[in-house]
Amino acid sequence: MSDTVATRTPLAAAMTAAAAEVEAALDVLLPLPEGAEARLVEAMRYATLGGGKRLRAFLVMQGAALFSVDRRCAARVAASVEMLHAYSLVHDDLPAMDDDDLRRGKPSTHKAFDEATAILAGDALQTRAFEVLAEADTHSNPDARCELVAALAHASGPQGMVGGQMIDIMAPVLLAAGQALNAEQVGRLQALKTGRLIQYSAEAGAILGRAAPVQRQLLAAYGRDIGTAFQIADDLLDVEGSAAEIGKATGKDAAAGKATLVGVLGLERARAQADMLAAQAARHLESFGPAADRLRELASFVVSRRS
Amino acid sequence: MSDTVATRTPLAAAMTAAAAEVEAALDVLLPLPEGAEARLVEAMRYATLGGGKRLRAFLVMQGAALFSVDRRCAARVAASVEMLHAYSLVHDDLPAMDDDDLRRGKPSTHKAFDEATAILAGDALQTRAFEVLAEADTHSNPDARCELVAALAHASGPQGMVGGQMIDIMAPVLLAAGQALNAEQVGRLQALKTGRLIQYSAEAGAILGRAAPVQRQLLAAYGRDIGTAFQIADDLLDVEGSAAEIGKATGKDAAAGKATLVGVLGLERARAQADMLAAQAARHLESFGPAADRLRELASFVVSRRS
Repeated sequence: MSDTVATRTPLAAAMTAAAAEVEAALDVLLPLPEGAEARLVEAMRYATLGGGKRLRAFLVMQGAALFSVDRRCAARVAASVEMLHAYSLVHDDLPAMDDDDLRRGKPSTHKAFDEATAILAGDALQTRAFEVLAEADTHSNPDARCELVAALAHASGPQGMVGGQMIDIMAPVLLAAGQALNAEQVGRLQALKTGRLIQYSAEAGAILGRAAPVQRQLLAAYGRDIGTAFQIADDLLDVEGSAAEIGKATGKDAAAGKATLVGVLGLERARAQADMLAAQAARHLESFGPAADRLRELASFVVSRRS
Repeated sequence: MSDTVATRTPLAAAMTAAAAEVEAALDVLLPLPEGAEARLVEAMRYATLGGGKRLRAFLVMQGAALFSVDRRCAARVAASVEMLHAYSLVHDDLPAMDDDDLRRGKPSTHKAFDEATAILAGDALQTRAFEVLAEADTHSNPDARCELVAALAHASGPQGMVGGQMIDIMAPVLLAAGQALNAEQVGRLQALKTGRLIQYSAEAGAILGRAAPVQRQLLAAYGRDIGTAFQIADDLLDVEGSAAEIGKATGKDAAAGKATLVGVLGLERARAQADMLAAQAARHLESFGPAADRLRELASFVVSRRS
């Protein structure tokens, strides 16, 4: 999103504000490069600061605002999920994984540093994400902090992000063996790989706000739907976009035999599916009234974005 | 420790019993291989189950017993620290890191599976370690669970294990540039890389038992000392041992330009230092009476072990 757009819509202004807030929180919460291990911390900061749309952080901040959660607490949780997300990108870009040299328009962490440093920086970002959640400044109620740790772990572990990444890596092997994933299997892959963490981000505000279970469930359903819509939009960009627009190499998914919903559904049906999910996501928010307007606008935004 | 030894001393019997208990807990707490991501879970289980001395688990179990903590709770914390330790070994063995083909007498995880799977399995083991600590079954008091998460994160993050691993990797580069680490710097490296997690393991029982701060501090001091003693003993084994005895390649440290206390102090002084630390560790436990006998015996064991 360019600065000119950022001043044009309430959503863009809110996203820019949330991104600035989480950037400031990350700067404080990440360690400073000191001592013989400074290189590790430099790589952690390189991988995390100054980049990305901060979609997950925005979801945390907006969800928390629905329950009048202290913004400083929400920003810590937002920073934590961005650290977790950054760790996953650092490891995904490694030569043994997706082997990407470019991330957010600059060299990926293992190119800017080296493979060993990138592995360790990813490891340490994951560690710090959980540490931040467990610290007393995140919430006065330790039950809320434990819930956040457990929910983030569930969303990012074998039954979540990392499980999805494993299936993603195996898909080309299965394809070559004549066992291409079907639409349902690709849907599950994407739900695990990207969906669960986006769902967690949407739910985190309800955990912070000690909301009623039904409210948390509505936000979870919203998160699930925009997560899938977001992933389809991402895959459409890979097919249709240019490297200059999205800051990373494009057309790679098909070349690498990656399993995507665009691949199994085709362009037309995939775009229709994303639009349907965006509309459905907005409907989950009806009971929240105007306070959820930015989240409703986000549902449209994720399927219309060009980068 | 062989089975014949295991039946001979109270320490050996207690270590064998604790290892069996944590093995059973790990088997329950690790996910089962199901679905398309089964390979990830198989690698997690391969890397964690059926191996190692379980030193960290033993420390947790013995520390918890001092405060009459429910053994099922202690076993969960012991399993969690063994998952964290296993993740660090999987990543340390990667080609971009120490490039070790052998671990605990069998192929390291990236040799038994592949690099991508090993990276993800390590990632997921770290995630699961924190998740287990945050779950209600670990302790009825959520403050205790948050303290465990924060303490484990601190011990294993940039100011702990991963920071030490970063310095360890940089040591040969610094050596080649004529900037070899001095004894103090090597001591700090080892304290971060191995010491902090052993210290955490010794302290965890006091956190679980809601012990007085002074009791936690004594166990932390004990853990710090045996951690350093253990590392020196490990380095001595690398110089003196055979691959058959310790189940991994030996003599690699010196060849790789690794910074060790044996390297900076020499064999004689290093062994004297380890013996001094073991004696000092035992003295920290005086106030705990006979209940801490196994921990005292462990202090002697870590510096006399042959594997």
